[in-house]
Amino acid sequence: MQQTEQGPIIRQRQRELVQALHQVLPKHSILYHEEDTRPYECDGLTAYRQLPMVVCLPEDEAQVQAVLRICSRLQIPIVPRGAGTGLSGGATPIADGLVLSTAKLNRIVRIDALARTARVQPGVRNLAISEAVAGHGLYYAPDPSSQIACTIGGNVAENSGGVHCLKYGLTVHNVLRVRVVLMDGEVVELGSDALDAPGLELLSVFVGSEGMLGIVTEVTVKLVPKPQVAKVIMASFNDVVTGGNAVAEVIAAGIIPAGLEMMDKTSSRMVEPFVHAGYDTDAEAILLCESDGTAAEVEEEIARMTAVLQQAGASAIAVSQSEAERLRFWSGRKNAFPAAGRISPDYYCMDGTIPRKRLAEVLTGIAVMEQKYGLRCANVFHAGDGNLHPLIMFDANQEGEFLRAEAFGAEILELCVAVGGTITGEHGVGIEKINSMCVQFTQTELNAFFAVKKAFDTAGLLNPDKAIPTLHRCAEYGRMHVRNGQLKFPDLPRF
Amino acid sequence: MQQTEQGPIIRQRQRELVQALHQVLPKHSILYHEEDTRPYECDGLTAYRQLPMVVCLPEDEAQVQAVLRICSRLQIPIVPRGAGTGLSGGATPIADGLVLSTAKLNRIVRIDALARTARVQPGVRNLAISEAVAGHGLYYAPDPSSQIACTIGGNVAENSGGVHCLKYGLTVHNVLRVRVVLMDGEVVELGSDALDAPGLELLSVFVGSEGMLGIVTEVTVKLVPKPQVAKVIMASFNDVVTGGNAVAEVIAAGIIPAGLEMMDKTSSRMVEPFVHAGYDTDAEAILLCESDGTAAEVEEEIARMTAVLQQAGASAIAVSQSEAERLRFWSGRKNAFPAAGRISPDYYCMDGTIPRKRLAEVLTGIAVMEQKYGLRCANVFHAGDGNLHPLIMFDANQEGEFLRAEAFGAEILELCVAVGGTITGEHGVGIEKINSMCVQFTQTELNAFFAVKKAFDTAGLLNPDKAIPTLHRCAEYGRMHVRNGQLKFPDLPRF
Repeated sequence: MQQTEQGPIIRQRQRELVQALHQVLPKHSILYHEEDTRPYECDGLTAYRQLPMVVCLPEDEAQVQAVLRICSRLQIPIVPRGAGTGLSGGATPIADGLVLSTAKLNRIVRIDALARTARVQPGVRNLAISEAVAGHGLYYAPDPSSQIACTIGGNVAENSGGVHCLKYGLTVHNVLRVRVVLMDGEVVELGSDALDAPGLELLSVFVGSEGMLGIVTEVTVKLVPKPQVAKVIMASFNDVVTGGNAVAEVIAAGIIPAGLEMMDKTSSRMVEPFVHAGYDTDAEAILLCESDGTAAEVEEEIARMTAVLQQAGASAIAVSQSEAERLRFWSGRKNAFPAAGRISPDYYCMDGTIPRKRLAEVLTGIAVMEQKYGLRCANVFHAGDGNLHPLIMFDANQEGEFLRAEAFGAEILELCVAVGGTITGEHGVGIEKINSMCVQFTQTELNAFFAVKKAFDTAGLLNPDKAIPTLHRCAEYGRMHVRNGQLKFPDLPRF
Repeated sequence: MQQTEQGPIIRQRQRELVQALHQVLPKHSILYHEEDTRPYECDGLTAYRQLPMVVCLPEDEAQVQAVLRICSRLQIPIVPRGAGTGLSGGATPIADGLVLSTAKLNRIVRIDALARTARVQPGVRNLAISEAVAGHGLYYAPDPSSQIACTIGGNVAENSGGVHCLKYGLTVHNVLRVRVVLMDGEVVELGSDALDAPGLELLSVFVGSEGMLGIVTEVTVKLVPKPQVAKVIMASFNDVVTGGNAVAEVIAAGIIPAGLEMMDKTSSRMVEPFVHAGYDTDAEAILLCESDGTAAEVEEEIARMTAVLQQAGASAIAVSQSEAERLRFWSGRKNAFPAAGRISPDYYCMDGTIPRKRLAEVLTGIAVMEQKYGLRCANVFHAGDGNLHPLIMFDANQEGEFLRAEAFGAEILELCVAVGGTITGEHGVGIEKINSMCVQFTQTELNAFFAVKKAFDTAGLLNPDKAIPTLHRCAEYGRMHVRNGQLKFPDLPRF
């Protein structure tokens, strides 16, 4: 992406904004020299870079309110930023905009072990919550792979998942309440400590809204008890279709494993020399099925899962015999991305979600695309919730390979939508997938999104041009809209 | 409530609307003679009655679209209606409005046993879903006590619960997707068959929106496997505070019972002569704790719950020894409302929700109010999720008792909010509790609700004056807003 350079107009706006911010923030919380703003030019999607006009780091809610009031008055767009670990460019700055970092809002406000909740500021790291409550035998369940670094504010913005989300839910299922500063500087609380609440349920809209509706200043999360025991089954399959169907069978049997992950042979052969996880590298597909709970629950569930997997055609089954072995089985899955980086000069990680029962069909489709594009694809996924992470391998130095990889990725996402799935599982839309939104949603649905966005942020200053494409953009992209496997040509844009 | 009579203006509007509806609906789907519209004058909140101008019963989605387009054009307000079993007056008609009944949209469209989902039209009864999928060993979990009669469309509108919602969730947790006709006649699909979806999460806003955002024409629900075994513990306590604390201890121990219900002595003595459930009528409080799952899971969980309840001070514990005994233990709880009707000329059923840990405190507060108002109150509740149903008993024929009961009820709800709870658990706001919304929410929060309402229904034609009070109404009501136990005087209304 080409950066926009600062011209005289941006420099004038910058002076105006910095001057106003100095009235409400301490000097050390305002950054605008290039050497200070450079670290904020991208998030985890490093292909998109843009130097922001100003960065600010408020230290309490009142400062957040003051910043939003200033930006409303001066009509400055704001890009909210957590730890910057996002993979879809949701925190990519705007050349004439402000980056509002929540890094300094990092206090754990209150832990209530009896009610099993914690109230924390958005800059608290995901793993720091679990560490703080470990003494009570509790933890915070959603565990994105970036959990050492990512913060709860970013998790709320992206509705982050992790390997345990099949059983324990995504961020939206583990957050009870948020305090939010709206663009006019007013504070609202969304959600409630109770199971149900009257009024419109705006908490779930806020979670996953990618910074477009307001700035979160406090998050009340649910905590869950640490399980006494956990064991994992490694099951081998002679073909990916049988493995895919076995996933559907486990779920259809009424079992909700603590984790249910699948890797194809390309993936297991890729990681085994690297981490020595003990994988069956002759199998076309490997399933990892975890059970957690009390000793009796785990014993019974492992027995039931084993029976279902055998019935579904597993060619071999191994159960972890110790905590060390359990962690070793998982180490292969968790190191799939770095392993891809060892065997291929470049790779492109996709993130799509499909109905579980269509898994076998989508795997077959991806195999056909490998031939069509002449590129290899390693498939690892959160199979239990149908969240695919195909890793397309290519060499950017070979003429045309990057473009082929991009087209391959786009075709995978279109297949996901065609079988009734979605274009993202847990990485968000950001700027990376904004064109794919035109494929996923009808014009009426995009209009509904914009109407709600406008209800919170009338002037459209919060993270503009992310997550929801304008109809104009969709018209330019010119892709068809696919709904329930039916092709549907987009209506003409309204302008 | 005083009914508004039909004057010449309403009669003129009626002629106009009926004429337009005849262009798009069969004759038998349009009702406007008083003898035909009389059955629609109220829902389960029978104190509020109003004859509607017209009732219509569309038979497919295209007819729903046509009706909404006509009402948009003629600016006719619409009250959507399911089975009319609601308890908060959400389906109370408007004198110059249309009642849109979903009763004829009653097809089960598709059952997918492998994916464990069912796609149904809104007029399908809650229990009919479970009956239709019983052959697959599945059922639909949310079970409001009206489940024989109430329909899934109404459940979606009210976000209905039931005794199993502690473990299995409310309606919002059991619905994957809805098809909705918006006021301009356009159709959108909210939600997805996948765990997560890109774009704003509007499904959760729609569920529980009490008919204010659109008309649902199709609902995709999750199905769950029927448990192999269920058993229930009946635990006695010598005082309600100890019983209330025991509820918090069960949850704090990391157990999620399939049901966790509490009754005080007034309630158990009220129902025992009526149903002979075998209750300990000397106990000040009785807890019913259910476990379901496989035989091994249930055995282990019953043992753990027994240990926690003993530790928490239970004076006696009994475990159901057969399915017949289990159903008998539950029969008392489920017949509490009819039993109240036998011993008291009138009763007023409240529906508030509080954080579980504040249960003992709220019970003590209600006991003090009994003295203050000179009225008895039987307390039954979905204790596990903190949803109280205090039954205030009174005799409307005694001078002043109705007003005292009403004031008693309002004070209970204000106590619920003061301890961090809400004014409704599962019965909705409707028109009954609309004033209490002024106590629950700040002006900024009510503004946010209205902004979202307007994003879906610009002209405000869908179920106006329900669920969300106007700021003008709150100003007239003049009650203080209580947040987190802190009194806060309302800001001046903005007009």
